[in-house]
Amino acid sequence: MLFKEWGEDNLVEYLRKNFPVKGHMMGIGDDCAVIPCDEEKVWLVTTDALAEGVHFLKEQISARDLGYKTVAVNVSDIAAMGGKPMYAFLSIAIPKMIASDWIHDLIEGVKEACQKWGVILLGGDTIGSKKDLFLNLTVIGTALVDQVKYRHQAIAGDFVCVNGFLGDSGGGLRALQENKITTADIGHLLQSHFRPNPNPLQGSWLASQEGVHAMMDISDGLDCDLRRMIKSSQKGAVIETTDLPISPALSKACLDNRWDVLQLALTGGEDYCLLVTISPTLLETIQLKFQKKFQTPLFPIGRITDNPNKLEYCRYGETIQINYKNFDHFE
Amino acid sequence: MLFKEWGEDNLVEYLRKNFPVKGHMMGIGDDCAVIPCDEEKVWLVTTDALAEGVHFLKEQISARDLGYKTVAVNVSDIAAMGGKPMYAFLSIAIPKMIASDWIHDLIEGVKEACQKWGVILLGGDTIGSKKDLFLNLTVIGTALVDQVKYRHQAIAGDFVCVNGFLGDSGGGLRALQENKITTADIGHLLQSHFRPNPNPLQGSWLASQEGVHAMMDISDGLDCDLRRMIKSSQKGAVIETTDLPISPALSKACLDNRWDVLQLALTGGEDYCLLVTISPTLLETIQLKFQKKFQTPLFPIGRITDNPNKLEYCRYGETIQINYKNFDHFE
Repeated sequence: MLFKEWGEDNLVEYLRKNFPVKGHMMGIGDDCAVIPCDEEKVWLVTTDALAEGVHFLKEQISARDLGYKTVAVNVSDIAAMGGKPMYAFLSIAIPKMIASDWIHDLIEGVKEACQKWGVILLGGDTIGSKKDLFLNLTVIGTALVDQVKYRHQAIAGDFVCVNGFLGDSGGGLRALQENKITTADIGHLLQSHFRPNPNPLQGSWLASQEGVHAMMDISDGLDCDLRRMIKSSQKGAVIETTDLPISPALSKACLDNRWDVLQLALTGGEDYCLLVTISPTLLETIQLKFQKKFQTPLFPIGRITDNPNKLEYCRYGETIQINYKNFDHFE
Repeated sequence: MLFKEWGEDNLVEYLRKNFPVKGHMMGIGDDCAVIPCDEEKVWLVTTDALAEGVHFLKEQISARDLGYKTVAVNVSDIAAMGGKPMYAFLSIAIPKMIASDWIHDLIEGVKEACQKWGVILLGGDTIGSKKDLFLNLTVIGTALVDQVKYRHQAIAGDFVCVNGFLGDSGGGLRALQENKITTADIGHLLQSHFRPNPNPLQGSWLASQEGVHAMMDISDGLDCDLRRMIKSSQKGAVIETTDLPISPALSKACLDNRWDVLQLALTGGEDYCLLVTISPTLLETIQLKFQKKFQTPLFPIGRITDNPNKLEYCRYGETIQINYKNFDHFE
């Protein structure tokens, strides 16, 4: 069997079975691994790899944005568990014919993002590559032991919420693929695609709230990641598609270009916002406090159900059938 | 300027300047980063990346050995600082046309090495790759805060020692490149090349001994790595080439194939043994205790001098000129 038929989720499942973890540590399968530190704190560790030609094209993304994005996607994983990012380790596989200026710019982007989120780059590895550029970043963060949030903690009845617009990054990617002229709207989508904006302060605040149950980040699209959440929680979910937060820029770009806004919101990928489930009795309180603290809303988009592995979509309460192909780097 | 002219060491230097580290942490430039844990312990973090076509050829190394080696080279970095390896995070960039059995074998090798050194694989990332396979492993270990050893601690007068044969892995690589028939000797060299055998128990024991000053591992060849050690210690060194430990297998293979044994011992690379400097007054005691504890010798091969950045080679005490090209993945 070829790897493309086997697929990434099967590989992760295989790894989890082959590398079981005992005790209080969480291993393969969540956004971060959790390592005990002391009685109060744990370490969170996450790793993200980016491959030229698969995750980015050097002709499309600037070196600086690429460096920035590499840090941002890892910060998003730490935020998703309720942690504070602390240290980073960068590996780069560099084709020898690349300009050293390009590498300087990449490092500038890494530095800018590290400064933004208070991350210290402590090490890594630099190696040669025959052809393509590869980046791997490992980020270590800390969280309070009793506030770490996992994706398997969703409870039936919980509201499903997100903390940002969906589909903007996917719209940006689409604009790149279709060589769209950069209007203000397209510019906004490109910005979302090149410079994801995870929010570990919101993540750790949410993690500290009673009533917040499961949490993860959306990296492969709401559809794909919510399926992962309900699978590991052994629950189901119903999403009200009219409640999905869509930015004015994406709405406009979808109208202008006849893009399917729902498809981008559900499967566009790389949103790097938080997907969180909240107890119905505490939702309103948490929403109000969140809005007051961060000056931005928390968007309820559906509910967790008792139907294992069943993800339903509604439009004004009526079930609708959706069969989009999910964002998959292997396809 | 192209990256190949700029080079890896310049990039590491540039990274170190751009990402300064304050206080007790050690950042870019040693085998591991050092992160404070509590009053007694620190965390050591190391990352090594391997690229197809640069560090390995899929036709030459089995998937299982590759998985094993990926863990071993990181364990070597932890051993080099005197630590105990604990947790690992594996990223793989996988071409989609690779057989899933190959990936299974790779994971078996990772598992075997993790079990050998008591390392728990806790996470990582799996991504697609257009063409080449890339591996990145981050390993976290622990060490006692007052026993961590650095490469910058060499003192003039120290003996320079290694804990294993030099050049075996380089000989194995040469045998592969020249398509040698696998005799018993060549088989031994190939084994050293495919399955490096770092020894964190020896590393942490050495680190615990009064009189042991600087320590690092030899990954790019004695010549290259000793130059790094004396540069960061602002010292020099004299190596007595007749004291370099050469395995019987390498001696034999060099005779049979007219290979330059000294060249392989100094620049073959991937020895993954320890390079350590020891106070002259304590050398003999440490050698005896080491031999008794580990049933294998510690080899003195030279001395640290007060001549900054000057690395001299002798043959029976007479200075000799050596101008081998160093092992460099970018060339």
